[in-house]
Amino acid sequence: MLPIALDAMGGDHAPREIVAGATRAARDFAIPVLLVGRPDEIGDADGLPVLEASEVIAMDAEPGRSVRQLKDSSLVRCAQAVRDGLASAMVSAGNTGATMASALLRMGRIRGVSRPAIATPLPRPGGPPLVLLDAGANAECEPAWLVQFGLMGAVFARDRFGTASPRVGLLSIGEEAGKGSPFVKETYELMAATDWAGSCGATFVGNVEGRDLMGDVADVVVTDGFTGNVALKSMEGAVKSLVNALLETFNASPEAQAAAQTLMPGLLPLYERFSPETYGGAMLLGVDGVCVISHGSSSATAIVNALRVAHDLVEADAVAHLTAAIRRG
Amino acid sequence: MLPIALDAMGGDHAPREIVAGATRAARDFAIPVLLVGRPDEIGDADGLPVLEASEVIAMDAEPGRSVRQLKDSSLVRCAQAVRDGLASAMVSAGNTGATMASALLRMGRIRGVSRPAIATPLPRPGGPPLVLLDAGANAECEPAWLVQFGLMGAVFARDRFGTASPRVGLLSIGEEAGKGSPFVKETYELMAATDWAGSCGATFVGNVEGRDLMGDVADVVVTDGFTGNVALKSMEGAVKSLVNALLETFNASPEAQAAAQTLMPGLLPLYERFSPETYGGAMLLGVDGVCVISHGSSSATAIVNALRVAHDLVEADAVAHLTAAIRRG
Repeated sequence: MLPIALDAMGGDHAPREIVAGATRAARDFAIPVLLVGRPDEIGDADGLPVLEASEVIAMDAEPGRSVRQLKDSSLVRCAQAVRDGLASAMVSAGNTGATMASALLRMGRIRGVSRPAIATPLPRPGGPPLVLLDAGANAECEPAWLVQFGLMGAVFARDRFGTASPRVGLLSIGEEAGKGSPFVKETYELMAATDWAGSCGATFVGNVEGRDLMGDVADVVVTDGFTGNVALKSMEGAVKSLVNALLETFNASPEAQAAAQTLMPGLLPLYERFSPETYGGAMLLGVDGVCVISHGSSSATAIVNALRVAHDLVEADAVAHLTAAIRRG
Repeated sequence: MLPIALDAMGGDHAPREIVAGATRAARDFAIPVLLVGRPDEIGDADGLPVLEASEVIAMDAEPGRSVRQLKDSSLVRCAQAVRDGLASAMVSAGNTGATMASALLRMGRIRGVSRPAIATPLPRPGGPPLVLLDAGANAECEPAWLVQFGLMGAVFARDRFGTASPRVGLLSIGEEAGKGSPFVKETYELMAATDWAGSCGATFVGNVEGRDLMGDVADVVVTDGFTGNVALKSMEGAVKSLVNALLETFNASPEAQAAAQTLMPGLLPLYERFSPETYGGAMLLGVDGVCVISHGSSSATAIVNALRVAHDLVEADAVAHLTAAIRRG
């Protein structure tokens, strides 16, 4: 397998945590990694190959402009490495907008895809994560795009989590077909008229609500990038707020600390399940290559997981499956 | 004070829990309550007065049609009692859409209000709840409506939670002014041009994100009713999912159960803080009267809290303050 191009300069803890993740993934999982960035800042990296890129796109830079101007940035060079056949996939914990723009600019879209979308796995009890898309690539969408998001999300759920026959839902504010905004109603009609079984082996389960995003009503939920991003960040904020409050309780007294210690064997897997680090980030679906977007705050562990996701998706031939689903959809 | 009209027939646990809440509120907080519904189903109710209403609007009934057809329903009669000066406020745990439609139809709008909005308090650490609106009254909005939501939300935050100078934020998918959908960008311009200090003593803090809904960046957050409802239900779902997973951990073994018992004195206030029962439901802002919408699953405790909220808002003269803010805004 070709190596995975990893943006060594992207993320709040770059390059240290990024490089640490790369060496761990190479050592523990035999994943071939091509580090992209400034060699002097990357350092030795256990002998992993380095593709030199002299520029860095800042986390808060304006995506479109920075990608056009900083042609020798680590992000643009990652996408270019995939396009040029030097890498099988790209992974970055850097500026999300610039990651999308780089991938779009250098890899291009899968033929027939109107707009790429960010697919984010959400943890849920007793089963594989639910896939939410679009989680923020397109602030405004057309109804037909959401049908494609559903097709791509279903392929992703199967290739990534082994969900044989994914149930696709449309995010709305009521379960009945007539509920929601005019945009959602129009999208519903298009989705109801789509041949899900024939195009990607999925089924359409109609409208779902915000509370179903961690439930078992659907395996893939589509929405516009504005609503998806708000829902995702709202849930992250709620979980974080609750976890912080719990930790305070656990530290309130020596007795509480001892009791919390007793509960740890059960709490740790729970923490792992709800942590954004676990699922190795989101994937940009619809570009002509595997592009994994890791959380800006990624630690080495998150990078290991993101590299594993990229590796698995290349092995599963996900881009070919996405291309086929879009052609049939 | 005139009594508060309480829809005895609305809610998953009506009329039993509703009536139990009414008698507790009357006994423990000296709140005058007028029960509205079928006398034979309501029963004795410790001698509380009953306004007879022969019909009931089902929880899943189509709001507009049912309110027009069921003129002798408990919901419509509640709103009518406020209009006719028999009650100072209305409270219902019934069909949310029908509650809004009844209030709008019988009480009418405050002069100058384009659309009423549902204001929902969200718990957050170390301070009064944040007020989110619109939480679902208007699936599609115009930018100017959101400015009014902000004015009304600021008045509500002060009258309900004592926030002297509320910070008003606009929900978007990035903090910078240019971030978000075209709708949000246009709304931002209007909000930035509004005299918040002069109209309602508030300040505009710009865009906020989903993760700020439980944070301390803003006291009032405005959005369209579609996004607001999705965000609210997403957070409820995430918290519920996490709490259920915690409870499983606490019951995993006798040792875990004992440890959880030790932590209970700290966990119970936490549970209370994050429970939707605590804040006594949402308020429909913009109708010409106090209308409190309690959760469909309301227990007697939730009803007591909803009645207290209605009582406090009447005492605070909230409708007069809303009217003044809209006039100046």
